[in-house]
Amino acid sequence: MYEVELKLRADHGELRERLAAIGAELMGTVTQVDTYYDHPVRDFAETDEALRIRRETDESGESVKVTYKGPLVDSASKTREERQTGVGDGETMAAILESVGFEPAATVEKARERFRCGEYTVTLDRVAGLGEFIEVETEAEEINPAREGAIDLLESLDLDPECGIRRSYLGLLLDAN
Amino acid sequence: MYEVELKLRADHGELRERLAAIGAELMGTVTQVDTYYDHPVRDFAETDEALRIRRETDESGESVKVTYKGPLVDSASKTREERQTGVGDGETMAAILESVGFEPAATVEKARERFRCGEYTVTLDRVAGLGEFIEVETEAEEINPAREGAIDLLESLDLDPECGIRRSYLGLLLDAN
Repeated sequence: MYEVELKLRADHGELRERLAAIGAELMGTVTQVDTYYDHPVRDFAETDEALRIRRETDESGESVKVTYKGPLVDSASKTREERQTGVGDGETMAAILESVGFEPAATVEKARERFRCGEYTVTLDRVAGLGEFIEVETEAEEINPAREGAIDLLESLDLDPECGIRRSYLGLLLDAN
Repeated sequence: MYEVELKLRADHGELRERLAAIGAELMGTVTQVDTYYDHPVRDFAETDEALRIRRETDESGESVKVTYKGPLVDSASKTREERQTGVGDGETMAAILESVGFEPAATVEKARERFRCGEYTVTLDRVAGLGEFIEVETEAEEINPAREGAIDLLESLDLDPECGIRRSYLGLLLDAN
């Protein structure tokens, strides 16, 4: 299975109406505060890895996860090794990482509204310091038809799929500073 | 508050009877499998720190914790900074640590029976590769009276408090290898 994902800058104001018009269903909203860490001796930017603590708040309350992302193993599908587990207390996990030499490098804070639209998940992201975005994603056995479907979906929302952004929010924030 | 703790080698066979005779109450049993990690660049033996994943199984099920222990801040009371939080999945946490360069250095596996005896907790530890031990501990405002009480308790169990062991189980295991 491949994860196919397209991301664009897009004002949310009109998008919610257009999403309703094409029958998209609001699944829920969530805020995520992600802290990314620098390794004590490894340059994660160079090795294309990441270590992150995510604090997530939704209707059911707050949860914390710690995640390691390995380098791309397939650049076409942007597939990475990813290891993630829940953590009881985010502050303590942060203190443990800092005690052994990891330093907080950047924080990405976003509010996400998730919609279901057929096979696709559409997410309206408001990212602190960056603005408003839309993400369209799905999982599929084959990349091309899934990608075509995502492009059609964006066009049905009056968006230009040519304006896709490949950079992560973390990357965009680091570029901006 | 100080934590006062005395530890001795002791065969458990006769001890359970003697504990019953002095009115000690069995609180529960637990098995703990502790994996200690080497830091990618820091020598934890030299800095007197530790990073550990503990998998604990008791009557209520299994739980996993990750713990950082800092160097001694007070050698008389053996006080250390300690930060510990629960983790959803121990294998994933281990994989995350290994991905960022930590290596499993030693495993300490023990079965513990805990008894309450007045102000003291008495623990019978059976440690894989090391044998059987007893630990007597309490928390107190003043070290000396608490220490005297622990000595009296050990004597009432026909044990010799002079044979106290200051080394941790991890230290004893590393010494043995």
